[in-house]
Amino acid sequence: MSKIAPLSGFPELLPAQRAVEREVIASVSHTFELHGFTNIETRVVEPIDRLAKGGEVDKEIYVLQRIAAEPDAKAELGLHFDLTVPFARYVLEHSGHLEFPFRRFQVQPAWRGERPQEGRYRQFTQADVDIVGRDELPFHHDVEVMAVMVDALGKLPIPRVSFQFNNRKLIQGFYRGLGIDDVTDAIRVIDKLDKLPADEVARLLVDRVGTTPEQAQRCLELATIRVEDTSFVEKVRALGVTDELLDQGLEELAAVVEGCRAVAGDRVGVEANLRIARGLDYYTGTVVEIFMEGYERLKSVGGGGRYDALASDGRTTYPGVGVSFGVSRTLIPLIADGVLSGSRPVPSVVLVALNNEDDRTASTRIAAALRARDVASEVAPSPAKFGKQIRFAERRGIPYVWFVQADGTSQVKDIRTGEQVEADPGSWTPPEADLRPTIISTATPSSTTSDSEENQ
Amino acid sequence: MSKIAPLSGFPELLPAQRAVEREVIASVSHTFELHGFTNIETRVVEPIDRLAKGGEVDKEIYVLQRIAAEPDAKAELGLHFDLTVPFARYVLEHSGHLEFPFRRFQVQPAWRGERPQEGRYRQFTQADVDIVGRDELPFHHDVEVMAVMVDALGKLPIPRVSFQFNNRKLIQGFYRGLGIDDVTDAIRVIDKLDKLPADEVARLLVDRVGTTPEQAQRCLELATIRVEDTSFVEKVRALGVTDELLDQGLEELAAVVEGCRAVAGDRVGVEANLRIARGLDYYTGTVVEIFMEGYERLKSVGGGGRYDALASDGRTTYPGVGVSFGVSRTLIPLIADGVLSGSRPVPSVVLVALNNEDDRTASTRIAAALRARDVASEVAPSPAKFGKQIRFAERRGIPYVWFVQADGTSQVKDIRTGEQVEADPGSWTPPEADLRPTIISTATPSSTTSDSEENQ
Repeated sequence: MSKIAPLSGFPELLPAQRAVEREVIASVSHTFELHGFTNIETRVVEPIDRLAKGGEVDKEIYVLQRIAAEPDAKAELGLHFDLTVPFARYVLEHSGHLEFPFRRFQVQPAWRGERPQEGRYRQFTQADVDIVGRDELPFHHDVEVMAVMVDALGKLPIPRVSFQFNNRKLIQGFYRGLGIDDVTDAIRVIDKLDKLPADEVARLLVDRVGTTPEQAQRCLELATIRVEDTSFVEKVRALGVTDELLDQGLEELAAVVEGCRAVAGDRVGVEANLRIARGLDYYTGTVVEIFMEGYERLKSVGGGGRYDALASDGRTTYPGVGVSFGVSRTLIPLIADGVLSGSRPVPSVVLVALNNEDDRTASTRIAAALRARDVASEVAPSPAKFGKQIRFAERRGIPYVWFVQADGTSQVKDIRTGEQVEADPGSWTPPEADLRPTIISTATPSSTTSDSEENQ
Repeated sequence: MSKIAPLSGFPELLPAQRAVEREVIASVSHTFELHGFTNIETRVVEPIDRLAKGGEVDKEIYVLQRIAAEPDAKAELGLHFDLTVPFARYVLEHSGHLEFPFRRFQVQPAWRGERPQEGRYRQFTQADVDIVGRDELPFHHDVEVMAVMVDALGKLPIPRVSFQFNNRKLIQGFYRGLGIDDVTDAIRVIDKLDKLPADEVARLLVDRVGTTPEQAQRCLELATIRVEDTSFVEKVRALGVTDELLDQGLEELAAVVEGCRAVAGDRVGVEANLRIARGLDYYTGTVVEIFMEGYERLKSVGGGGRYDALASDGRTTYPGVGVSFGVSRTLIPLIADGVLSGSRPVPSVVLVALNNEDDRTASTRIAAALRARDVASEVAPSPAKFGKQIRFAERRGIPYVWFVQADGTSQVKDIRTGEQVEADPGSWTPPEADLRPTIISTATPSSTTSDSEENQ
């Protein structure tokens, strides 16, 4: 028997931490639904040839085999490594039963056999929103789906996030207008600006892609444009490149930035960052990467874009646009750093104390009466001294202890303040804030704090 | 590239069907939380030697390997085949951070590589509730955890379910009191009453277990006792066997039946069925199997019991008691039979119509105002003729279409009744029943139906 030890890359949350994750998933799911996105859940396995399609990621796939399979049996299934591949397959498989444009969200784990590090796990949960059309998908859905994620993340008590947008048409049109032949290769080199100094990237453009030094300089100038409004349009025009695709890209990017700024509150930044390309070849228009303030070391905590051929069965093409939020990648480091914690590890609001074991039925009835009005309650495990029962509640963060008196009446004690009052299980209600475990966040001032600051 | 085709044993739900599953999971989760059970989620993989511990199920485990692993690398991880094995490991791994008795619920998929059939899938979702203690776990928790599941299933719009309880101490004590040496083997033979006629089972008891014909007869008599109250105690006593363990089992079973009857409404049956044994050796007291009326062919849709050693690290033993509900096993057949369906495939309550593409911003603002008051809304994808936009809503089951007038005022149309009224997006609210997709069930009369029946 293997020793009990954590498995590297497979993090697990303690109950109060899991309460944070549940509240976050409930919050983003609720926002997605308010925007008309429906939830689906796909099976976790796909045929290996479908998973390996991209080529690039095939080394990280976990393949599956029944333990009783013949030794030389070929493995045919693998665990999905993202939620896009299974979604594309779901759309093709069930297209006859779906209405298009089809808006869906999906919150599920995915698996990659890569080397674990902070923010990168072998099992991790993602929350994806996508809109997919049949044959066509008008551009305004790009604005729509990105604004949904801006809305969803803006409601979370996490550090400020920044949506950094670009547009593949803009980059491709600009490079084409400059006269660069191998646009894809140029993008790949510019993507190295993360790791290499600008002059070295310029040299690579000349040596590897075959640009002139002047073309390389323009590419770098384009890549350094980064603004929080639509002023990038003028800045790009000032570089003197003209191209029809560039015009279209500029217009689309401006619309995405404007549409997202309209819904972004204080907690979300929206930028045009013309260095963002996203490596994957299938993006064809809008691209986005999401970063979190103070957590730039995690790289992006989300990303996505437009793909004109999300799925195709040979006759029909399904274009899509979407964005993914890394739930585990974001929350596990925030929880580890103490930025987010759960207010208590149990849902119980009330512990009903026990006078003696024979009175368990009376206490159970009190708890049932409280539950009937949606107040989560549990009965003390044993008729210990009341001080011990109160400490039992304290250790679990249960805010109230309920005492059944000899005459059948009840009293309830707020063990944080010590206040104890007469109460009727058929009508007593705790303050709204005590009803469920909540997220305690050092990233956002609580409303109480900001109120009292204003009052000073 | 593999052709797109369903994978046998990996069922997937369409959006309206998934809405049913989500509502069911939300409902049981809410009940579990009302009883003070906290949610955890475990990683889906466990070391193979831990999964294979039971021996019996090892042929059905899916093992995992990185696609780039060396050809002769030994697979070390497998997907869990239930939620009990990972929960036991979680308790051992995190015991220093948990408070005992620890009440948890868990709703996750599990995987078994067995041959698929109705109600048996290779990927299936379960909902488990368990209470685990350190060193000891008083018996009253048996009553508590079973009553929680009775409460949870009684609130679901599924056909009536029946909890059939027995107690291992009762069986073992009875057999011991009868003078049967190999109690375990006798239980295994009695378990065949499902498939074999009584006289053949009696013959097996004599031939294989070595009982006398009279002992065999008594065993059969015990196994046929099945009542909906605690009258089984008298019936067992009438068989004339006395044993200390039997007494304890009778007392425990009576307490479980009484405690569960106290919370069971019309939708749940509670029985003592002395034929229930549950094959697994680790049960040591209470055992239960749950059946669904009209769906006896699925066998049990849930089950569980008491295990005095759920987990052990050599020094400390963690006794547990719990019960599992087969979410997929129950819902997929009910959905396939049309017993359960979702009221609509999208969360949207309102489709905001579009006058022309230039007015998209105005329609988007209306939708945002509705969402700010928790009314799920989407904007029409294109400014088609209004008749076409209404049909777009109809196909999705969206009940209301919102029209923005030339003068800036709004009207909202209930497309089911045709009624159209002036409305303000800052105050209009749909009836509560329209706010979310709901479950339509032929298993339970809807409250509207029973009301109108009463009125006739």
